[in-house]
Amino acid sequence: MTMDQHLQLTVDGRLKHFLTIEGLNAALLTQILDTAESFVGLSQNQVKKVPLLRGKTIVNLFFENSTRTRTTFELAATRLSADVLNINIATSASSKGESLLDTIRNLEAMHVDMFVVRHALSGAAHFIARQAAPHISVINAGDGQHAHPTQAMLDMFTIRQHKQRFEQLKVAIVGDILHSRVARSQILALNTLGAAEVRVVAPKTLLPADVEQMGVMPMHDLDQGLRDVDVVIMLRLQKERMNSAFLPSESEFFRCFGLTEARLQHAKADAIVMHPGPINRGVEIASAVADGPRSVVLQQVSNGIAVRMAVMSMTLQPGGAA
Amino acid sequence: MTMDQHLQLTVDGRLKHFLTIEGLNAALLTQILDTAESFVGLSQNQVKKVPLLRGKTIVNLFFENSTRTRTTFELAATRLSADVLNINIATSASSKGESLLDTIRNLEAMHVDMFVVRHALSGAAHFIARQAAPHISVINAGDGQHAHPTQAMLDMFTIRQHKQRFEQLKVAIVGDILHSRVARSQILALNTLGAAEVRVVAPKTLLPADVEQMGVMPMHDLDQGLRDVDVVIMLRLQKERMNSAFLPSESEFFRCFGLTEARLQHAKADAIVMHPGPINRGVEIASAVADGPRSVVLQQVSNGIAVRMAVMSMTLQPGGAA
Amino acid sequence: MTMDQHLQLTVDGRLKHFLTIEGLNAALLTQILDTAESFVGLSQNQVKKVPLLRGKTIVNLFFENSTRTRTTFELAATRLSADVLNINIATSASSKGESLLDTIRNLEAMHVDMFVVRHALSGAAHFIARQAAPHISVINAGDGQHAHPTQAMLDMFTIRQHKQRFEQLKVAIVGDILHSRVARSQILALNTLGAAEVRVVAPKTLLPADVEQMGVMPMHDLDQGLRDVDVVIMLRLQKERMNSAFLPSESEFFRCFGLTEARLQHAKADAIVMHPGPINRGVEIASAVADGPRSVVLQQVSNGIAVRMAVMSMTLQPGGAA
Repeated sequence: MTMDQHLQLTVDGRLKHFLTIEGLNAALLTQILDTAESFVGLSQNQVKKVPLLRGKTIVNLFFENSTRTRTTFELAATRLSADVLNINIATSASSKGESLLDTIRNLEAMHVDMFVVRHALSGAAHFIARQAAPHISVINAGDGQHAHPTQAMLDMFTIRQHKQRFEQLKVAIVGDILHSRVARSQILALNTLGAAEVRVVAPKTLLPADVEQMGVMPMHDLDQGLRDVDVVIMLRLQKERMNSAFLPSESEFFRCFGLTEARLQHAKADAIVMHPGPINRGVEIASAVADGPRSVVLQQVSNGIAVRMAVMSMTLQPGGAA
Repeated sequence: MTMDQHLQLTVDGRLKHFLTIEGLNAALLTQILDTAESFVGLSQNQVKKVPLLRGKTIVNLFFENSTRTRTTFELAATRLSADVLNINIATSASSKGESLLDTIRNLEAMHVDMFVVRHALSGAAHFIARQAAPHISVINAGDGQHAHPTQAMLDMFTIRQHKQRFEQLKVAIVGDILHSRVARSQILALNTLGAAEVRVVAPKTLLPADVEQMGVMPMHDLDQGLRDVDVVIMLRLQKERMNSAFLPSESEFFRCFGLTEARLQHAKADAIVMHPGPINRGVEIASAVADGPRSVVLQQVSNGIAVRMAVMSMTLQPGGAA
Repeated sequence: MTMDQHLQLTVDGRLKHFLTIEGLNAALLTQILDTAESFVGLSQNQVKKVPLLRGKTIVNLFFENSTRTRTTFELAATRLSADVLNINIATSASSKGESLLDTIRNLEAMHVDMFVVRHALSGAAHFIARQAAPHISVINAGDGQHAHPTQAMLDMFTIRQHKQRFEQLKVAIVGDILHSRVARSQILALNTLGAAEVRVVAPKTLLPADVEQMGVMPMHDLDQGLRDVDVVIMLRLQKERMNSAFLPSESEFFRCFGLTEARLQHAKADAIVMHPGPINRGVEIASAVADGPRSVVLQQVSNGIAVRMAVMSMTLQPGGAA
């Protein structure tokens, strides 16, 4: 067992925490997708709730502001009938200089059941999972430039919805790979699920030095990178990285790496276009593509609720944890 | 059908959105009041909830801070057993430069059922209603200087509680008519419900140029304006408009247009005094009047919960929407 | 009846508000502890909720930021199945210059059932309890330097868990007694419950002038103060008071009044160490002690939920209030 397996799985191999795709095998990822499948129909019901986690307390522990991500986890928890406690440490006076560990210990003592953790530092969710009491599950909602595993799984879910199987798929991930926790988690998930080819398309300054070792093919020309792919995943460009050493101007970036309808012609005729949102229109993607017939961007958002419900119920359900 | 009718009503004439009083007829306004009536008793129950909207997700989408208004909608939704998501875009980092439309599309994709919208720009709620997916209802919780229809309906409810019928009523609305979305919605509702006479009492600088066309009688003297009225509606004076071109000092305004017990003598003996709150004591209204036997200010607040429950349940209930 | 009794109790002697320990007798404090006992086991259940306060609305009315305290009350209310409304007046634009009394009157009109009040001014919760409508209960969640009665009761609960009876106990409260609402409430509770000896250990500048009149023994030497005690209660040192006229440097304070393992040897062999949190490690308490075998700091946090559930259910339950 690797360290990540050891940390995320119970002794009998079930999901205890969800921190990273690393160390999880195809069977477990597929179980997440199948469980999510069972929740997708719920949104069509008159009453969009199931009582699976009634009486459980889920804490959204956000050390970094993200209303959008917090919202998806809050909705997922509410639809499982859990009680949600939102704690925003970024703006909170709660800590009063208290250490992270003391904050965790105090919340544990209040008998909460799950921490959904967002943090600017890589490894924060792992740290909390290692320290947390045995009855608590931790879900990583994004840690630094490290991982964003629920985002990757909702992407896998969306791909499976449209392409059924991963085996024959060619996927291009385009944009700022270097700083992207989303890309890192997607690459791991695609390779675990057996995608035929994963390309990362970016200027050299936005690719990690050892990127080939992640099992991907680095490419620097967008047209070439898109050739014959089944899935195009665009990344959000962090505006704060613009006009730095990494990047030229927005318009220059769009000219070279922005996805337009013309460029999309290089992909397969039935290729789908994905983006984790929020979209910078006219920076990494043209509005015509984002709103066009191949875009599955809003389906990703919908699937995000189902996938988060899946992960929450798998880690917290009676018998589902050590 | 007018544009507002077309937007707010289903093809069979039921309420789909609640954006403005404009275009709604007396029958529909009366239906809102009757539905609210059925919720008023609830607050006396041991359990102050009904399961009407269980499993529905209502989003308080506030682009302008207003804890008071947000609170009334949150309580109304909770007492209908809906789940509430508070999103404060004013302070939220969520948007990250995302367009309003993208924010709406994303929340829709999360299968929410209703947007309660507060925005500093007139027309914002209409815009969202026009863009929203078919299953979604929109309630205007105040847009710029345009409309605040739930406030107007809770005022109508309170008037009906005390006066039973609208036909013979003389009503004076006093204060800053020019900038008031509340006044605009009240005038429309009073005229639709058949009030005998609606007077607007204000200095010339605080009356719209074409105010007569709204079906009201403009007056500039408070004593005259109050003569023989059944209902006095005081408006809140926005302090930020003080000492501007519009207005003299606070004390000068109170001397001319502030409601005192002495002045209230001009109204009918059984006249009621209303105010949308929060009150500026000693600016537009004397404390003795605000807290006096004719004041129904706190009844307005109570009725606000029932009226918002009515509008929420009418727009969202099975069979109640297209 | 004293004024505090009159305000907190119904005519037949049951708890209506919980504002201060003052005026409550041992029987009533014991009833709180016994009721809390019945909630302690709940946290082990699959579903950690009881339907006791379903349909009730509890308002966390915080005029001072405190995520930690707000969290404990929110969890307690949620586990009693009440609906919770968080209103943070410190950061809220709601008041718009509205008076405290108008804010209270408005929330009452919305048919809320309880105010949990945190305020920087001593007496704020009393003021609200005196003004509130008859159906409303008020709980003091800390007012200035006056009282923090739920904190004191969770401390009593924790002491009883470990020591069973109060009669023979020697207790030392160590630190900034002068500014501590926690200490004030603890002293009252310990004396009411019949503790044999309550010592307050602090530099002269951090003791009230008339402290003996509170029924405690003032001491200025920590080693002496700890001699043979059963319970050590450390207070949090407010950092903003450091380097003022009251206090020397942090390290100087720790040298004289910080609790270390060596110093703890002076207490009884089975003495327990308490702290209301959040802890300043290395300022008032050494980490080895805070995390050591005698520390019951996290049990205090757990017990805090049960004690708050007890007080909420006692004041709000049908038949439990006038």
